[in-house]
Amino acid sequence: MSTLVLLRHGESEWNAKNLFTGWVDVDLTEAGREQAVAGGRLLAEAGLLPDVLHTSLQRRAITTAHLALDACDRHWIPVRRSWRLNERHYGALQGKDKKQVRDEFGEEQFMLWRRSFDVPPPPLADDDRYSPVRLPQYSGLGDDLPRSECLKDVIGRLLPYWESDVAADLRAGGIVLVAAHGNSLRAIVKHLDGISDDDIAGLNIPTGQPLVYDLDDDLAPVTPGGRYLDPVAAAAAAEAVAKQGH
Amino acid sequence: MSTLVLLRHGESEWNAKNLFTGWVDVDLTEAGREQAVAGGRLLAEAGLLPDVLHTSLQRRAITTAHLALDACDRHWIPVRRSWRLNERHYGALQGKDKKQVRDEFGEEQFMLWRRSFDVPPPPLADDDRYSPVRLPQYSGLGDDLPRSECLKDVIGRLLPYWESDVAADLRAGGIVLVAAHGNSLRAIVKHLDGISDDDIAGLNIPTGQPLVYDLDDDLAPVTPGGRYLDPVAAAAAAEAVAKQGH
Repeated sequence: MSTLVLLRHGESEWNAKNLFTGWVDVDLTEAGREQAVAGGRLLAEAGLLPDVLHTSLQRRAITTAHLALDACDRHWIPVRRSWRLNERHYGALQGKDKKQVRDEFGEEQFMLWRRSFDVPPPPLADDDRYSPVRLPQYSGLGDDLPRSECLKDVIGRLLPYWESDVAADLRAGGIVLVAAHGNSLRAIVKHLDGISDDDIAGLNIPTGQPLVYDLDDDLAPVTPGGRYLDPVAAAAAAEAVAKQGH
Repeated sequence: MSTLVLLRHGESEWNAKNLFTGWVDVDLTEAGREQAVAGGRLLAEAGLLPDVLHTSLQRRAITTAHLALDACDRHWIPVRRSWRLNERHYGALQGKDKKQVRDEFGEEQFMLWRRSFDVPPPPLADDDRYSPVRLPQYSGLGDDLPRSECLKDVIGRLLPYWESDVAADLRAGGIVLVAAHGNSLRAIVKHLDGISDDDIAGLNIPTGQPLVYDLDDDLAPVTPGGRYLDPVAAAAAAEAVAKQGH
């Protein structure tokens, strides 16, 4: 038996501005920092103290993890990071206002880019100000560096890390915290719960709300869908995510 | 050629209260957080961008590193931690007011406990409220867990980690950041610069001021004593450390 805790980063500066973010390395807002601390307090109250942390290479997940772990006195645990836990690369939509994109391209195209399983947005040009191609943290990626991704692409680049690193820590027992992003966490949930390509579109993961999976020896969820430590707040926050761009 | 950056944590809550801290896991003050951010900005301005971080298991060093690395856009680098980088365990003095200890025991005994190379303070009782024996981060230490330490003891438990982990990263090249504490950093500086047991008493490392060593292939300093990125601020801060308890 092992326990997986998924934590989506708190509100970021671009969540607050309603912009597509993706691989743009924005910071948390003050509200996002408070969400991260509150998430850590929920873990402490539940006695769910992580033994190891996995994060993306992105500031908003890294800082969320730092604040949450500090709040539950687990600031000292080992840290592992991978670009494979990064948010979905939103291609040419990065930096664009969600409402403007919806007004310009229409509801259907907007929802297709946002929620379709296998249609990525147009690629982001390498000379775009929001392109990650010149960031040193991605200098070793070569052909793996995406220019745009759909959820299927995220699953494709995330699962190798899941198997090699996260699952390895889960098999060693204890409590594993993954602090990451809306779409990288949806990829993990889809994998764990065996959600279909169609049904995953309806799944929204709230920010700053620890989602806990107890896993059996085959790393299958004991309770499908896991459980939120604060179900009422999580439902309200998921609803707010679903309404973005409207 | 490789580069070592030493960074002592910013002002802690107990620095501000003038208490002996040691292994008590206090937080930074707001001023300490600002010092950490300023330290990171100095690294960015100097183009000294760390490739890997080593910290202690203590909150004040971990948060200092987080804030400094975030300020120079290196939040994503690999992190390694060890109790061997912790502050000196101050034994029965932990939690006591520095000025009160000085007034009660006299200047000579005060300076002996504070700065002698090989005289540890009396041991801290395991049932003391400030004892680390029940903290989970030290549960695997067994007989290695100190009850009090002098600087000689710190060197004894730090150097194995220096050789196995920090030196290994330095030999791989690049820039290695060690975010730690007054006495664990003094131990490293003593080792690097070959400072005698007597002379190390006079060395005070300022908080939040990056101290940079360029090292040759044998990990010997190119310039003995290294260099501070902001020498004027570092000298003033070192002076303030020397005056503590007065």
